[in-house]
Amino acid sequence: MRVTVREVAQLVGGTVIGDEHQPLSGINSLTEAKPGDISFLANPKYDTYLSETKATAVLVASAQKAPNIIQVVVSNPDFAFARVVATYGPKAVPPPVGIHPTAIIGDRVRLGANLAIGAYVVIADNAAIGDNTIIYPHVYIGHETQIGTDCMIYPQVSVRERCLIGNRVIIHSGVVIGSDGFGYASVEGVHHKIPQVGIVVIEDDVEIGANTCLDRARFGKTRIGKGTKIDNLVQIAHNVETGHHCIIVAQVGVAGSTKLGNYVILSGQAGISGHLTIGDHAIVTGKAGVSKNIPPRAVVRGSPAQEIKACQSQEVAVRRLPQTQQTVKELLLRVAELERRIAALGGAPAPASGGGEGSTP
Amino acid sequence: MRVTVREVAQLVGGTVIGDEHQPLSGINSLTEAKPGDISFLANPKYDTYLSETKATAVLVASAQKAPNIIQVVVSNPDFAFARVVATYGPKAVPPPVGIHPTAIIGDRVRLGANLAIGAYVVIADNAAIGDNTIIYPHVYIGHETQIGTDCMIYPQVSVRERCLIGNRVIIHSGVVIGSDGFGYASVEGVHHKIPQVGIVVIEDDVEIGANTCLDRARFGKTRIGKGTKIDNLVQIAHNVETGHHCIIVAQVGVAGSTKLGNYVILSGQAGISGHLTIGDHAIVTGKAGVSKNIPPRAVVRGSPAQEIKACQSQEVAVRRLPQTQQTVKELLLRVAELERRIAALGGAPAPASGGGEGSTP
Amino acid sequence: MRVTVREVAQLVGGTVIGDEHQPLSGINSLTEAKPGDISFLANPKYDTYLSETKATAVLVASAQKAPNIIQVVVSNPDFAFARVVATYGPKAVPPPVGIHPTAIIGDRVRLGANLAIGAYVVIADNAAIGDNTIIYPHVYIGHETQIGTDCMIYPQVSVRERCLIGNRVIIHSGVVIGSDGFGYASVEGVHHKIPQVGIVVIEDDVEIGANTCLDRARFGKTRIGKGTKIDNLVQIAHNVETGHHCIIVAQVGVAGSTKLGNYVILSGQAGISGHLTIGDHAIVTGKAGVSKNIPPRAVVRGSPAQEIKACQSQEVAVRRLPQTQQTVKELLLRVAELERRIAALGGAPAPASGGGEGSTP
Repeated sequence: MRVTVREVAQLVGGTVIGDEHQPLSGINSLTEAKPGDISFLANPKYDTYLSETKATAVLVASAQKAPNIIQVVVSNPDFAFARVVATYGPKAVPPPVGIHPTAIIGDRVRLGANLAIGAYVVIADNAAIGDNTIIYPHVYIGHETQIGTDCMIYPQVSVRERCLIGNRVIIHSGVVIGSDGFGYASVEGVHHKIPQVGIVVIEDDVEIGANTCLDRARFGKTRIGKGTKIDNLVQIAHNVETGHHCIIVAQVGVAGSTKLGNYVILSGQAGISGHLTIGDHAIVTGKAGVSKNIPPRAVVRGSPAQEIKACQSQEVAVRRLPQTQQTVKELLLRVAELERRIAALGGAPAPASGGGEGSTP
Repeated sequence: MRVTVREVAQLVGGTVIGDEHQPLSGINSLTEAKPGDISFLANPKYDTYLSETKATAVLVASAQKAPNIIQVVVSNPDFAFARVVATYGPKAVPPPVGIHPTAIIGDRVRLGANLAIGAYVVIADNAAIGDNTIIYPHVYIGHETQIGTDCMIYPQVSVRERCLIGNRVIIHSGVVIGSDGFGYASVEGVHHKIPQVGIVVIEDDVEIGANTCLDRARFGKTRIGKGTKIDNLVQIAHNVETGHHCIIVAQVGVAGSTKLGNYVILSGQAGISGHLTIGDHAIVTGKAGVSKNIPPRAVVRGSPAQEIKACQSQEVAVRRLPQTQQTVKELLLRVAELERRIAALGGAPAPASGGGEGSTP
Repeated sequence: MRVTVREVAQLVGGTVIGDEHQPLSGINSLTEAKPGDISFLANPKYDTYLSETKATAVLVASAQKAPNIIQVVVSNPDFAFARVVATYGPKAVPPPVGIHPTAIIGDRVRLGANLAIGAYVVIADNAAIGDNTIIYPHVYIGHETQIGTDCMIYPQVSVRERCLIGNRVIIHSGVVIGSDGFGYASVEGVHHKIPQVGIVVIEDDVEIGANTCLDRARFGKTRIGKGTKIDNLVQIAHNVETGHHCIIVAQVGVAGSTKLGNYVILSGQAGISGHLTIGDHAIVTGKAGVSKNIPPRAVVRGSPAQEIKACQSQEVAVRRLPQTQQTVKELLLRVAELERRIAALGGAPAPASGGGEGSTP
């Protein structure tokens, strides 16, 4: 990387505070930066790192008190830095354009232009791969599966038959798409397999993390909506459908036939039961266990999941509960003492105004 | 698919209400069906879909009020529909019978009749594969491992050495069988690996979901009992044994040496500690964390898991807890007020009838 | 296995009680042992098995009352038995030394001495593999990735570009190292991918379980410290760093940028939020959800995780909570009755000593 602060500022449309001719030689986080590096400050949590960083320049959202560092002011430092990294950062070297001689391409496979298909890839009959798509070694593509343009498929991915993958889809190593859904009809103590003859549809601009599994539908389709991003080790069961631009964090599980709206966020290790509807913009926090429908924009927490404020109130209450129970124990003694004293005073029981039943301990 | 309602009814042993000569052209769920499709109604939750479906015919458990749709009455519509789909639905095209020229077969490997072994499969020395078994590309079978007849092994499965796989076993993509169990002897701050020299035994009619892991035993065997079905991304640790016909849903983890009885159900994301015994027909609900033995037919929930009714009572109680604590706070004030008033009345403390200690707040 | 008790005792530095010339023919657990086998007793939980075992000899930490069995007394029977198994137990047969003719080795790859590289392995340009390392079939090693000496890499592992793997590292089947971290900058409703240009560093003596995922850093490095052991299906997000000799059990997830100290134990299915610090020797129990920093040597439990004693007290309290709420309901009635009786006695309200507001139910 050989570039000046000015060039970076031009790339991201930023304003320079300091010497715009300063050369930059590297890219790093504030804490790991060396002299010559450019870094960024996006999270106020890391403000204090600014005074300690060795970075030469930093992308910021507004001018900071940091006289020894060149600042580039941009509206979204996180996004701007991503562009800097994409432009100047280290690049992966994918398999070269062309079809590796060891790749096995079935009959009637339609291949687009400018493809790169790596060593030991197996593509079954009647599949189709779009222009510019890159397929790393050891990938399996089943028969009649269609993959769009500009996709990136990392090593050891398995996409079974008849699935439909859109454009600009990124699929990380070890992902399984189109495995059978988990369905059995139990008759006289034996679980008989229910055929899973549907497909998986992945829309454009989806990214799928390593070793994630997306089961094919029983019939019809399992669908991942446009722009949705899925992290590693996620389980998407048969006939699940997600809307657009959802975020599904690592180790989440979504059970069969559940539908997510648009912009739903499922945080790490959350689990969603089957046959539910999760509304647009709903947020499920980490480890939550959802067993009921969630309305749009709701934020839920806990297991079984509840609206977050109720859940947090209960968490606070539970932390105080041992003390509460001690207080109740003391109240029992104080009330018994009062009852004894009032009896000693000769006070007759007043006429009950209802609800007296059940009052005996 | 070109078939009449009558042919479907004969296949499943059903009784037709309506025109049995009606031709059928497709198979689908009630909600996605088009005219010409056959569907099914198995879950009363979906009764309302019957009046809205565009399906031409539907499998039902009993005659429904649905004059515009042809009904086929069968005892188990779910199971019957599975047979319809298996008979008339789309079929996967596995690797053709024979051994792909790129498959690498070790020395002294015993191969049954009518096998299909796909491209780039590697089978190590002294392994054995039974008749009619289908092995997709990129599968690795370790030395001395035996696989039975009529198995289906999807791409990129790894079965390490000396494991025993029964007949009619289905293993989905990315499954790892026979990896080392997780065991160390910690001596002076260093974790020394404990050799894991046992095996994994998979009995007949087991199905194993994508990217699931089954570790080999420390010694002896990790065993999956006949007819057990395991979903995706499940962790089965060393020396675990399951009985027959268990159901283990996605992302469950079972720690070392735990024994499951027959017909145990572990729901999604449940975790079972090591060295436990889970009784026949026990059910562990989703996300439960089991740290004690479970008797037969028990249903447990929560983490730490408890009998489901107790757990649900506590969940209800916790939701009311903030109000309870408010009530206790008010009771404290009311009791203090009563104590003041009774003192003002001059009532002397009655003799305590025991338990007076601890009564001071 | 043909060996005498004496030879075993010499191997482990133990003292024999009984006939040291007795021949041994096998190795097994106490419950599965046959006559001729040697076994071990390390966990007092299994003391009762000693009277029932058919083993001929057993490693013990101190002399036991078991007259019919030959005892070998050693300080750490677990560790000693591991040595017995490693010496006399069944051995895996890895790919033979040399490079399989189907392995594809890129340009300028540096290969050490005495390597074994299996069938269909793909190693990209400029990678380096150290002496004595064994790579099973179907492994992918990305460009510029360096792997140390004496490593064992099982089938279908993917290590992407520029990662650094130390010496004596064991990587089980299906592991993905160096997949992109999960990071997006959301601008006007679209999640833009943040380039992940850092690497993964795995230090010496680490073991990584099957289908575990370790994401590369956004920049800088994701790091697994020396001697750390990771079980199956674990998620390690970008920029996570672990200290030395940590234990991370199956299905744990650690979110981005979290730092673990040395000797941290994360039990099965635990989840750790991002940007946290977990102190040396801290223990997170199974299924715990950690959302705050944890001090050294703390033991935490629950979700949200708390110090274990507080959490357990609350668990006990919650189990009693339905009864507590019944008691509060009864107290309300008894207090109301007292209030009526004292009013009937004509007692005037005493002057409140503060806090009277809020006392109305």
